[in-house]
Amino acid sequence: MKLVFAIVGNDDAPLVNSSLTKAGFQVTKLATTGGFLKAGNTTFIIGTEDEKVEKVMDLLRKQCSRRTQMMPSTATTDGTMYSSYPIEVAVGGATVFVLDVDRFEKL
Amino acid sequence: MKLVFAIVGNDDAPLVNSSLTKAGFQVTKLATTGGFLKAGNTTFIIGTEDEKVEKVMDLLRKQCSRRTQMMPSTATTDGTMYSSYPIEVAVGGATVFVLDVDRFEKL
Amino acid sequence: MKLVFAIVGNDDAPLVNSSLTKAGFQVTKLATTGGFLKAGNTTFIIGTEDEKVEKVMDLLRKQCSRRTQMMPSTATTDGTMYSSYPIEVAVGGATVFVLDVDRFEKL
Ligand code: NI
Ligand code: NI
Ligand code: NI
Repeated sequence: MKLVFAIVGNDDAPLVNSSLTKAGFQVTKLATTGGFLKAGNTTFIIGTEDEKVEKVMDLLRKQCSRRTQMMPSTATTDGTMYSSYPIEVAVGGATVFVLDVDRFEKL
Repeated sequence: MKLVFAIVGNDDAPLVNSSLTKAGFQVTKLATTGGFLKAGNTTFIIGTEDEKVEKVMDLLRKQCSRRTQMMPSTATTDGTMYSSYPIEVAVGGATVFVLDVDRFEKL
Repeated sequence: MKLVFAIVGNDDAPLVNSSLTKAGFQVTKLATTGGFLKAGNTTFIIGTEDEKVEKVMDLLRKQCSRRTQMMPSTATTDGTMYSSYPIEVAVGGATVFVLDVDRFEKL
């Protein structure tokens, strides 16, 4: 048995949550209030059998890999907001720690 | 030293908290915002010596074992709620992960 | 790789957060709602290479060691609050669990 700690961006959290849940994993979502550089993250705890860790990794990779996205940039003049040319921004990413479980019980 | 992660229903959380605390365990309660199927859960982190893990399990088993409860069912007609015959509902349950601690310090 | 769980008082949390972050550690702050005796605590999860655990400990020790502080005591009479002679109060302290990480990935 393993316990997976996955720290993902808030934007990716709902899809991470639903895809893991749909795949039958036990998922617990912790409210994280974020450090200075880590604002806007969500921490998932996922309990899983050893042989399914790779499946968890695959789902995480699919839902929250580091990627770039085109976003409309905006310019503000005189209190009015104008949408201008699209810019490329980096989004996503996940930090994953897999811990070995000594003992697991469902009470 | 072990670190116990216990995920219990919110209904059972206050008694889990007080019974562990009364028994002298160091208990930290994490705010969990719950996955799709896991809404309404609380995660406890309990640091304990190896030989007291069984005591933690006993307390958890006592406070939040899966059990059925008779609840008044309710029927709603025309916006008015009627209480009808009692039905049996499943409540409680806990998922417990015990992890080995490499190093433990009280600063 | 290690995963450090550090439970510190809320008063010390901002400095713990900023000093760890400045030192280049990956810090995740969990919202903890505190048990009976543990109200007002914050839990940090810090992922770090084995050889830097001591550095994490040093920073934690520096920011939140148990210590006494002189505080103005206050006396209330007839709804009015008077500041009186300073008293010594115990503040700070941290409980730290270091866990071994089986597998670590940045996605
Ligand atoms: Ni295992
Ligand atoms: Ni041990
Ligand atoms: Ni290691």
